Amino acid sequence: MDTTLERAEALDAADPLASFRDRFVIDDPDLVYLDGNSLGRLPKATAERLATAVREDWGGRLIRGWDDWLDLPVRVGDRIGTALLGARPGEVIVADSTTVNFHRLAVAALDARGGRRAIVTDRDNFPTDRYVLEGLAAARGLAVRWIDGDPVAGATAEDVAAVLDDDVALVALSHVNYRSAAIADLARISALAHESGALTLWDLCHSVGSIPVQATAGGMDLAVGCTYKYLSGGPGAPAFLYVRRELQRELRNPVQGWFGREDQFAMAQGYAAAPGIRAWLTGTAAVLGIVAVEEGVRIVADAGIEGIRAKGIALTEYAIGLHDAWLAPLGCDLGSPRDARDRGAHVSIRHPQARRLCAALIAAGIVPDFRAPDSVRLGFAPLYTRFVDVHEGLDRLRRLIAGGA
Amino acid sequence: MDTTLERAEALDAADPLASFRDRFVIDDPDLVYLDGNSLGRLPKATAERLATAVREDWGGRLIRGWDDWLDLPVRVGDRIGTALLGARPGEVIVADSTTVNFHRLAVAALDARGGRRAIVTDRDNFPTDRYVLEGLAAARGLAVRWIDGDPVAGATAEDVAAVLDDDVALVALSHVNYRSAAIADLARISALAHESGALTLWDLCHSVGSIPVQATAGGMDLAVGCTYKYLSGGPGAPAFLYVRRELQRELRNPVQGWFGREDQFAMAQGYAAAPGIRAWLTGTAAVLGIVAVEEGVRIVADAGIEGIRAKGIALTEYAIGLHDAWLAPLGCDLGSPRDARDRGAHVSIRHPQARRLCAALIAAGIVPDFRAPDSVRLGFAPLYTRFVDVHEGLDRLRRLIAGGA
Repeated sequence: MDTTLERAEALDAADPLASFRDRFVIDDPDLVYLDGNSLGRLPKATAERLATAVREDWGGRLIRGWDDWLDLPVRVGDRIGTALLGARPGEVIVADSTTVNFHRLAVAALDARGGRRAIVTDRDNFPTDRYVLEGLAAARGLAVRWIDGDPVAGATAEDVAAVLDDDVALVALSHVNYRSAAIADLARISALAHESGALTLWDLCHSVGSIPVQATAGGMDLAVGCTYKYLSGGPGAPAFLYVRRELQRELRNPVQGWFGREDQFAMAQGYAAAPGIRAWLTGTAAVLGIVAVEEGVRIVADAGIEGIRAKGIALTEYAIGLHDAWLAPLGCDLGSPRDARDRGAHVSIRHPQARRLCAALIAAGIVPDFRAPDSVRLGFAPLYTRFVDVHEGLDRLRRLIAGGA
Repeated sequence: MDTTLERAEALDAADPLASFRDRFVIDDPDLVYLDGNSLGRLPKATAERLATAVREDWGGRLIRGWDDWLDLPVRVGDRIGTALLGARPGEVIVADSTTVNFHRLAVAALDARGGRRAIVTDRDNFPTDRYVLEGLAAARGLAVRWIDGDPVAGATAEDVAAVLDDDVALVALSHVNYRSAAIADLARISALAHESGALTLWDLCHSVGSIPVQATAGGMDLAVGCTYKYLSGGPGAPAFLYVRRELQRELRNPVQGWFGREDQFAMAQGYAAAPGIRAWLTGTAAVLGIVAVEEGVRIVADAGIEGIRAKGIALTEYAIGLHDAWLAPLGCDLGSPRDARDRGAHVSIRHPQARRLCAALIAAGIVPDFRAPDSVRLGFAPLYTRFVDVHEGLDRLRRLIAGGA
């Protein structure tokens, strides 16, 4: 392992995506931002687009803006679906929050598998997913079957197979684990679930825009994801949801809002679901939020998810090399899979003092995320994270630990 | 009735709120915008605040912005609650859409009154409210008891009393009807509901920022409202919800998301609701949306809801006078209550050709809203609608009808 800064600089010089960094606002060139998987950086185009949307579309066109805005959730959803998720047109919309979407898709799945009394999920699944499922299980008298997988490897197909039977209504997992970055085997787990008659609900928050998703090919039933990480939609940007085309008639959106109704502005008596994915809309679309998402998605789509994946692998491989050379001898432990095929675009480094180390890193101008109980999580956004950033982040971490911080 | 333009100009000259119009972006001074109750105009301060929030808070502070953003839903909620709703601090948050909030509050109420099997609402209630309730009723095997009230007077306390008994779990009505502007008697209906053991859920979309709401004094249990009408939060801005303090422990948020959990960032196993109104948060807060709402609410609070109410009455009285003088003889009919105490800040004028007339008005630079089956709805936003706008709008409508349009 060549741990010199020169090596990092050479990797940056050879990076085919290097120019994409110029499309983001970078105020402080000295800040090493390794948290693009918590909140993605602001694209320059987004600042301009939002100013126009506010000033001209809202301020100038006023209510007449809805002539264009009504299509936003589907238009931007289709862009995410076809460019990033391997989905077909008409399977994705941008709407609501990840939590709200996760909740209503879970309700729809449980309703559609009404006789079954168990939900399968992972102890290491993202908290909001666990909390929503626990709430639904309590309200409906269902059991949650917890997978207590390996904290690094995550929930495997074998783990899922071990708890599946014909009483399971829903298997709900993250595609990429929020802490370890372990990639779940979406296709195999989906096939197993389908064999036993269960539906699957995937949380794509840490995979969308960082690794390819095979929605159609992998047999994904339902999914949600957020747009404020790798898609750079902005803090609290609207989320997206995916409903496989073949399930759109069978499943029913439990939140029957006016945006999901056929011929919405007739404001007629009684509910009749709009055709296709529009049936999964609920309330008034968050126009300014979706506009920002559209700009973020544009950059990701321009770069191409295959190239992003390749750089994500290169960045994480490089980080793991530095970890092994510098940090393992100091008492750190890798909290992410070593095989690049099993790992998303972030890396967790475990250390008993992780919380304190994260605070010290932030004070030193390096921004990671602490993830309980013992992980320094380093998120690499392939469109603007450089190899020199990885080098500096890990070098600083090494010096903090060696210095007794 | 003095129907001259001079009279309108005199009324504007004497308007104590006249200067507030300068705080809004008005690109086209010839446009007569009578749809501020569909989408409120853009405040000048909002354009600036959003630019700063995007460029400096998101672009510059990145993930560190959350140090301030975590309080936004409660801070702006409190401002709405205390300045506009007659609520106490800690009873309102800004979150999600009106539809999503209406759904989850209705679920919470139905769960809390689990033995009861009926929901009371109004045939003329806003569509999304009706659709949500019908969906919940179907899913839970409950009955909807419809109030078929007078289309102008709306659902009265007598109407509600006639369908109430101890099998009713929930009474869900709009405070101000979206078409007729009829004000429901919130206090009397709440008292009736409580006598029979039911909870109340109020839709405040057309009242917040246009008439005072007596949340505490009126005995309001639960409420939702939107921020993109009189509060000028922008297209699809996040909504708010209200949960009466005394009910916050008894009722349970059915969408258990991570933002509603105690000690959210511990990301611990199992759900424990955050204290107070924070338990009603769900997913990641829509930061940019809430920031815009804060600016809109600031203007409304600066003007004061009593002054806004007084001008709303003056504008609608004036419009009704012109209707009686000009339009009634041409076959129009007033679709709103004549007693100002019973009427919000908009007026509906009924005509068999209302749909065509609305299109002709828009082509002539007057923006109303068509509301099926036969209403030209004229929304008056007291902070920027002038008496000359009302004069011009009704004069144009008169000439269109007289000319056979």
